[in-house]
Amino acid sequence: MNRLYHYPLSPFSRKVRLSLAEKRIEVELVEERFWEQDADFLRRNPAGKVPVLKMGNRLMAESSAICEYLEETHPTPSLLPSDADGRYEVRRLVAWFDDKFNSEVTNKLMGERVFRKIMGTGYPDSANVKAGSKAIKYHLDYMHWLLDQRRWLAGNELSLADFAAAAHLSCLDYVSDVDWNRSVIVKDWYAKIKSRPAFRSILADQISGFPQPSHYSDLDF
Amino acid sequence: MNRLYHYPLSPFSRKVRLSLAEKRIEVELVEERFWEQDADFLRRNPAGKVPVLKMGNRLMAESSAICEYLEETHPTPSLLPSDADGRYEVRRLVAWFDDKFNSEVTNKLMGERVFRKIMGTGYPDSANVKAGSKAIKYHLDYMHWLLDQRRWLAGNELSLADFAAAAHLSCLDYVSDVDWNRSVIVKDWYAKIKSRPAFRSILADQISGFPQPSHYSDLDF
Repeated sequence: MNRLYHYPLSPFSRKVRLSLAEKRIEVELVEERFWEQDADFLRRNPAGKVPVLKMGNRLMAESSAICEYLEETHPTPSLLPSDADGRYEVRRLVAWFDDKFNSEVTNKLMGERVFRKIMGTGYPDSANVKAGSKAIKYHLDYMHWLLDQRRWLAGNELSLADFAAAAHLSCLDYVSDVDWNRSVIVKDWYAKIKSRPAFRSILADQISGFPQPSHYSDLDF
Repeated sequence: MNRLYHYPLSPFSRKVRLSLAEKRIEVELVEERFWEQDADFLRRNPAGKVPVLKMGNRLMAESSAICEYLEETHPTPSLLPSDADGRYEVRRLVAWFDDKFNSEVTNKLMGERVFRKIMGTGYPDSANVKAGSKAIKYHLDYMHWLLDQRRWLAGNELSLADFAAAAHLSCLDYVSDVDWNRSVIVKDWYAKIKSRPAFRSILADQISGFPQPSHYSDLDF
């Protein structure tokens, strides 16, 4: 049985969960309190991060490298276009969300409001929370601009870029940090993603100490 | 003519420069003071980062997405293996250096000692410098462990993983932050990379306010 060591509110774990589910690759989920840097966990991944995917005897880390591997070994349904230009655009946007959005928004909001509490590293830094709340607006506007020209974020087909974005936004939505009223276009995009079977396991996530808000799993949010 | 907007001491720019040079794709280098967030630059890349590659009318950002694009459109010489397992390992290590090494070492040492001075953002934070100096040892040891089993970092062929690692280490070497005596194996690997024609432009870099140390471009360092 394949196994994914993950943390429910890790966007990088969620991106891999979405890829696996979309490709109907069955996997047992094992929750990993990665910040405790348990010796067994560090043996599985010396980088000390989630997700880690175990397929057969193979242990794999780094979410984007895993997603590319899944794409190459399980190409149907495809999450990357077949042409180099299209593939570039998907990879650019995956990096946009996993690097820029993550450092400007996810780390600032989730990092301060959720992970400090879970990890026991003190009170939220309000300057970071404020900066994250401001930055998410620009990112939602950028998504609006993209989705105004395309059916999905990187083009007319669903791709890894949509899963990367939805992975971050769904974590933030769990703590009610997304203003869905900012753009009808972005809200419609998220409603489409949310209603996919691949998203079900993510909508069922429960994090102790953080009760799931009612809109989170509601398809008519 | 292709054009690369870059900064000489940006490891992400260097990784793309190495890929371009190895594939003999000619490019005009344009130095970009990316932290000034000039309006023209932000039009080229709304993420406000270097490198940005202009090929024909196409503007491309995100170093790893660019490198994958170059690999697909200019496959010879190849910087990614042909099998999925080998490609996974290259991508895992590129992410290791561009994410983990970058945040634990490059940002801490270059960020504090070089970019603070260039950008005029105050004095180095000595706690960060100390943490970076400590972390680089573990990373050099990890490279030693990998290179003890393989000719190159990700396997027996030169790959993007070597260029990602060499991009970070060469920036740190410019400010004499790499202890090459820690591992003969790692030093030999760097000597092999350094002597490639693709590395020449990087060894010729000069940064105003930071004179190039004599060992930096010496192939017998």
